[in-house]
Amino acid sequence: MAGYDWITFTSDYGLEDHFVGVCHGVMARVAPGVRVLDVSHAVAAQDVRQGAVVLAQAVPYLPRAVHLAVVDPGVGTGRGMVAVEAGRQVLVGPDNGLLVWAAEALGGVDRVHALQNPGFRLKPVSRTFHGRDVFAPAAAHLAAGVAPAELGPEVDPGGLVRLERPAVRAGAGGVAGSVVAVDHFGNLALDLRVADLEEARVAVGDLVEVRAGGRAHRVLVGETFASVAAGELVLHEDAFGSLAVAVNRGRAADRLGVGAGAPVEVAKVPAAGREGGG
Amino acid sequence: MAGYDWITFTSDYGLEDHFVGVCHGVMARVAPGVRVLDVSHAVAAQDVRQGAVVLAQAVPYLPRAVHLAVVDPGVGTGRGMVAVEAGRQVLVGPDNGLLVWAAEALGGVDRVHALQNPGFRLKPVSRTFHGRDVFAPAAAHLAAGVAPAELGPEVDPGGLVRLERPAVRAGAGGVAGSVVAVDHFGNLALDLRVADLEEARVAVGDLVEVRAGGRAHRVLVGETFASVAAGELVLHEDAFGSLAVAVNRGRAADRLGVGAGAPVEVAKVPAAGREGGG
Amino acid sequence: MAGYDWITFTSDYGLEDHFVGVCHGVMARVAPGVRVLDVSHAVAAQDVRQGAVVLAQAVPYLPRAVHLAVVDPGVGTGRGMVAVEAGRQVLVGPDNGLLVWAAEALGGVDRVHALQNPGFRLKPVSRTFHGRDVFAPAAAHLAAGVAPAELGPEVDPGGLVRLERPAVRAGAGGVAGSVVAVDHFGNLALDLRVADLEEARVAVGDLVEVRAGGRAHRVLVGETFASVAAGELVLHEDAFGSLAVAVNRGRAADRLGVGAGAPVEVAKVPAAGREGGG
Repeated sequence: MAGYDWITFTSDYGLEDHFVGVCHGVMARVAPGVRVLDVSHAVAAQDVRQGAVVLAQAVPYLPRAVHLAVVDPGVGTGRGMVAVEAGRQVLVGPDNGLLVWAAEALGGVDRVHALQNPGFRLKPVSRTFHGRDVFAPAAAHLAAGVAPAELGPEVDPGGLVRLERPAVRAGAGGVAGSVVAVDHFGNLALDLRVADLEEARVAVGDLVEVRAGGRAHRVLVGETFASVAAGELVLHEDAFGSLAVAVNRGRAADRLGVGAGAPVEVAKVPAAGREGGG
Repeated sequence: MAGYDWITFTSDYGLEDHFVGVCHGVMARVAPGVRVLDVSHAVAAQDVRQGAVVLAQAVPYLPRAVHLAVVDPGVGTGRGMVAVEAGRQVLVGPDNGLLVWAAEALGGVDRVHALQNPGFRLKPVSRTFHGRDVFAPAAAHLAAGVAPAELGPEVDPGGLVRLERPAVRAGAGGVAGSVVAVDHFGNLALDLRVADLEEARVAVGDLVEVRAGGRAHRVLVGETFASVAAGELVLHEDAFGSLAVAVNRGRAADRLGVGAGAPVEVAKVPAAGREGGG
Repeated sequence: MAGYDWITFTSDYGLEDHFVGVCHGVMARVAPGVRVLDVSHAVAAQDVRQGAVVLAQAVPYLPRAVHLAVVDPGVGTGRGMVAVEAGRQVLVGPDNGLLVWAAEALGGVDRVHALQNPGFRLKPVSRTFHGRDVFAPAAAHLAAGVAPAELGPEVDPGGLVRLERPAVRAGAGGVAGSVVAVDHFGNLALDLRVADLEEARVAVGDLVEVRAGGRAHRVLVGETFASVAAGELVLHEDAFGSLAVAVNRGRAADRLGVGAGAPVEVAKVPAAGREGGG
């Protein structure tokens, strides 16, 4: 009855095709009064982990909504399809870990329903485009006021597929993690947070050695890009709370020669430190 | 009077410029209450055939709308500009074949009007951006309730420019077609359909030889990506009813080394078949 | 009280990340009834001049709105953040020259307020994403009816940072400028206008020599792409009033081998001209 004014939409569909547009069309036919807010369709293809990070980072800034997310390498296999209620909102997508971190950001998983009712799917359902045929219709029906329980049976939240949290190795000498994503500006977001640095007793203003791509770079721990001169590397807390390597007015990904998935170590600089590149 | 709640918008304008945004602006000024749904702006530049395929595939999933489509290599020449009524909807764009297949997907062309009335154009009309100056205003006026007949004189639907349907060569030994498009995931959509395979007496579960890019690949005819192991090639019916070559969790375009326009043959494997690559 | 039905949004955020989606989310939370029109998010990274050109070119085609624009290489430094009233509309963004040309296109700067009131920002304000934390909330509050004066103190419009207009060198022999942008079709927009050509007594129908990328090309001054045969170069006035170099059904950027920022000279062809490339 109540429903939602908004559906947000996150996927790895890219914008080179009509996949996103067709899903918008399906939603417009089911729920013409609802507005769809595109979060991102540039999650790396089939990268469930990156999709989960993007959605969990975005959701605190989004309006109350049905959050539709599709990064679904298991489409056409037996993987589950779910509506996850969390914080009086609903997340819709495959049961592969994509939705759980966002649900936790919304206050934790309250209830889960499996999307099994064929009455809320397109007919026929294709084998490769469940975004169009199952998930978008489900999201639109929920936004139009259909209760999650109508979409299918309630299932145990404990059975949801969950992604492993990254294993941060922090010690007296520094911390080790990896690159989660390279953004449009070439900044490298790491799966490390300021608290990890603090555990290694590294603070803003310190010089550290960032080891990545087979080289070591001397880097200032700063508060923002402008903490260093143009062209210089800086390690800082980015706008979503992650540690990130950036180059003021430049591209850190090019400087370090690494991309998503690359291991990165942040080491305290020994008193008489060796030369670092930059 | 009645008008439309939606305009859909398909083009080859890309998203690197303000072309799409400016057209949205023009429509918002004419018809502020209408919502615009972007189908795709990534049709290959000036590729009318690909635009026609995208629009015809999308339109069954879109809400009742004025469908604005602009892929217009002939802009500034004498090519016609039309509003095509089909199935109680309207398609607006250049008369170069772009709209006809979508009109047929909507039930067939009912009436055509030429967009000749200067009262429904911007002033002045540029020589190179009729999307902004002619087509977007026409679409917006139609959505706002202007009758097609007000936009210009009725013209004979038989005179519309039509694209040739691809010539499928099917025989006892197999079928020959070409790649229509490479999607975001590297899947190769062919201008062949399951019926073409059936004509060559090839069915799901058969092994075939896919010849493309100067090489032959042994490929399973399957139902979906997951019909084969990760990294393996599969020939399947995609979500829009086309035959497609895919690699489970991989990119078929990279594996075969071909792109849009490349010829592809699907041949039955002889009893004691030669080695195929993969 | 009055407010605006629309916010337009121009940035260099790209579409590879969730930056644009998150800003949409912030605006939807503050001003749920307002619609956001994306002008372009593909301004070259940190290229304030290109952003200023895009916004000034687009704004005459946009609905009455709060125009949010973010190209902000100085984020986290002491650069100003402003709401600029112009022609009964408002522009919101950094004070780095980005907004001024668009304000002039709207009739000139009427009043300027600094965005200093913390009550209209997110809390906390990050050091690197003021689009999300300062500019998008300000735009949304303005659209929802908050008066510019509530956002912060009025400041002297004369103190706004302004970009230098390009120095066109025109003489009897021709004109010299540079490439402002390469569009999706490979067309090269120059920082020259038809009036500059007229000053050099060059008119439509003339042959000129276009010197760029270390080579000279014989080019017709035409009215549109189709003024020359397919594959031929043409110098014409583009849809936004700039001189542009194009190839009919081809890509001028590839032909000339130059991109944004490259110097370009347009020279009259001497009576017995030397060979030009093409």
